[in-house]
Amino acid sequence: MSLAVVGTVALDNVKTPSGFKQDMLGGSAAHFSMSARLFTPVHVVAVVGRDFPEKYTKFLRGKGINLASLERGDGPTFRWDGEYKKEDFNTALTLATRLGVLESYVPKISPAHRDLPYIFLANIDPEVQAALLRKMISPRFVGLDSMNLWINIKKKSLLALMRKVHLFVANDGEARALTGETNLIKAAKSLRRRGPKFVIIKKGEHGVLFYSDRFMFSYPAYPVETVVDPTGAGDTFAGGLMGFLSRAKKVDEKTFRQAIVYATILGSFNVEGFGMAKTAPLTMSLVHQRRDHFLKFISI
Amino acid sequence: MSLAVVGTVALDNVKTPSGFKQDMLGGSAAHFSMSARLFTPVHVVAVVGRDFPEKYTKFLRGKGINLASLERGDGPTFRWDGEYKKEDFNTALTLATRLGVLESYVPKISPAHRDLPYIFLANIDPEVQAALLRKMISPRFVGLDSMNLWINIKKKSLLALMRKVHLFVANDGEARALTGETNLIKAAKSLRRRGPKFVIIKKGEHGVLFYSDRFMFSYPAYPVETVVDPTGAGDTFAGGLMGFLSRAKKVDEKTFRQAIVYATILGSFNVEGFGMAKTAPLTMSLVHQRRDHFLKFISI
Repeated sequence: MSLAVVGTVALDNVKTPSGFKQDMLGGSAAHFSMSARLFTPVHVVAVVGRDFPEKYTKFLRGKGINLASLERGDGPTFRWDGEYKKEDFNTALTLATRLGVLESYVPKISPAHRDLPYIFLANIDPEVQAALLRKMISPRFVGLDSMNLWINIKKKSLLALMRKVHLFVANDGEARALTGETNLIKAAKSLRRRGPKFVIIKKGEHGVLFYSDRFMFSYPAYPVETVVDPTGAGDTFAGGLMGFLSRAKKVDEKTFRQAIVYATILGSFNVEGFGMAKTAPLTMSLVHQRRDHFLKFISI
Repeated sequence: MSLAVVGTVALDNVKTPSGFKQDMLGGSAAHFSMSARLFTPVHVVAVVGRDFPEKYTKFLRGKGINLASLERGDGPTFRWDGEYKKEDFNTALTLATRLGVLESYVPKISPAHRDLPYIFLANIDPEVQAALLRKMISPRFVGLDSMNLWINIKKKSLLALMRKVHLFVANDGEARALTGETNLIKAAKSLRRRGPKFVIIKKGEHGVLFYSDRFMFSYPAYPVETVVDPTGAGDTFAGGLMGFLSRAKKVDEKTFRQAIVYATILGSFNVEGFGMAKTAPLTMSLVHQRRDHFLKFISI
C-alpha cells in the first residue's frame, strides 16, 4: 500500500451527444483510484451517503481498491449533474450540484495509513484537502488538483495549499484563471513560483505541458475519434500519473515522461465510454498495447 | 529551381499586444518563400501594385527568392490590416482588406518555370490557385492552403481544387468549418475523402495533426513564451514543410515527420517577431539549433 487519494465519490447524471446516463459511479477519488489501481495499491479517503449503492462499494473493492477510509456519512451522497456539448468537449457544463454528505465532511484516515508516502489531493474543497494532508506523517510526494469553483471561491486556501505540495495539476482554463496569464508556459512558470516544483497543464484533446525548473516537455493527446463522456478524464490522467510515480519511486525527468505517457493513455480510455465503462475493464496489457501505438504516433 | 508558390504579396498593418507596425512586407507567398528559401530555390508567382516599395523586392531577391513571376500590376498593392488580442493569439481579427491589384489578378508564370515539380497554392482566391495550377506541366506534388473567407464565399471552387492536390493544409477552425466535424481526426478523414492524400491540421499553440490513410501523427508546438505577431505563421510553416519535401524528393512517413518538425520550427520563429523580423535573418544553423531543442522537448 503506497498511495492515498482524498477526493469525492459521487453519483453522476451525465448528458453527452452519445446519450444520457443516471446514477453512475463518479467523483474525483473514484476515477483516480480506478486508474491508479493498475500500478499500485490505492487507498481512498472519501465520504458517501446512506443512499450509496452497495454494488458500487463491492465494485471498487473488487478492483483491489482499499476502502478502509471510505466513510458512510449521515445524508445523501454527493451528486453532480453535467452536460457536454458536441462543439466543446473540453468544457463540462454543471447543471446541478448537490453536496449532501460533503457539506460537513472532515476527512479521516485510519492510523495505520497515515504514513503512506504518496498522496494525491484530488478535486474537492481545498480545506478538506489541507485537513487530510495535515494528518499524514511526512509524505514523500504530494500531488494536487483543483477546479475553477475553488479558484473562484477559495483561492486563498488553495494558494496556501499549493505551497505544501510537490506537484500541481491543472487544466488550461484553470491555469489561466489562477495566474491571469494567457500563454501557458508563462502560466506554468507562475504556478511554479507559487510553490509546486512540478506543474502539469492538461489541455484536453490538445495534450499536456509539463513544467519544472530543470526540464519541460509536451505531448499531444492520444487520438480519440469518438469521445463519449470526458467526465473524470483529468482524475483518470492523475491516477495513471501518480500510480506510475509511486511505483517508480523516482521523480526524475525520464520517470515523469513515462508517467505522463501512461497518464495520457489512461485518460484516453476514460473518454471513450460513460463513467468508468472503459477504465474498469482495463488491464496493463491493454494499457501497454495502446501505449505502444501512442509512442509510434508521437515518435520522430 | 524546384518549388513554385502562388499567393499574395501584401503590405500589412498589424496591431498586437506588443505594438503596432505599418506597411510591413506580408502576404502568404512572401511568408512562404522567406521560409522555403532555406531549403530550396523558390519561385514566387504573385502581383504587387505600383506603390510596392522597391526595398521589398530588393529584400526578397537578396534572400535568393526568384521574382521572375512577380508581376507589377496597375493599381495599389493588396493590403491587410489586422489585430490580435492577448486572450486569443490563434485568431486574427481582420480590420480592413483592400484588394487593389488582386481584384483582377490572373497568375502568369514564365514558360521556363512551368515544369517546376513542387507547387504550393498559398492562401489566395481558389480560382487564382486553380488558374496557376492549370498552367503547370505535370507537377509532381501540389500543396494547398486556404482560409475561412474562401470556405465561406467560394466553397465550390475550393472543393473542386482539393480534388487536384496531394496535400491540404488547414488550421483547426478551417478544418471544422469545411467539414462540419468538431473532432479533428474525423475532420481530417473527411478532408482526405475530398481528395488530398495528405492532410495537415495546424492547431497554433497546440501543435499539428498529420493524417493519411497509411499513417497519422501529432506533435505539439515549439514552446514560445512571448508571441509578438502570429501573422504568416501558417505560411511560414507551409514554407518549411514544402521546402523540406522538395529537397527530400520523397513523401514517405519519415520524410513527412521530418518536414513537419522543420515546419514547426520555422513557424515558431515567425511568431516571435513582427512580420519577417525573425524569419528573414534565419540560417539553417539557427534552425537546427532550435530543432535539436524541440526534439529533446518532444522525445519520450
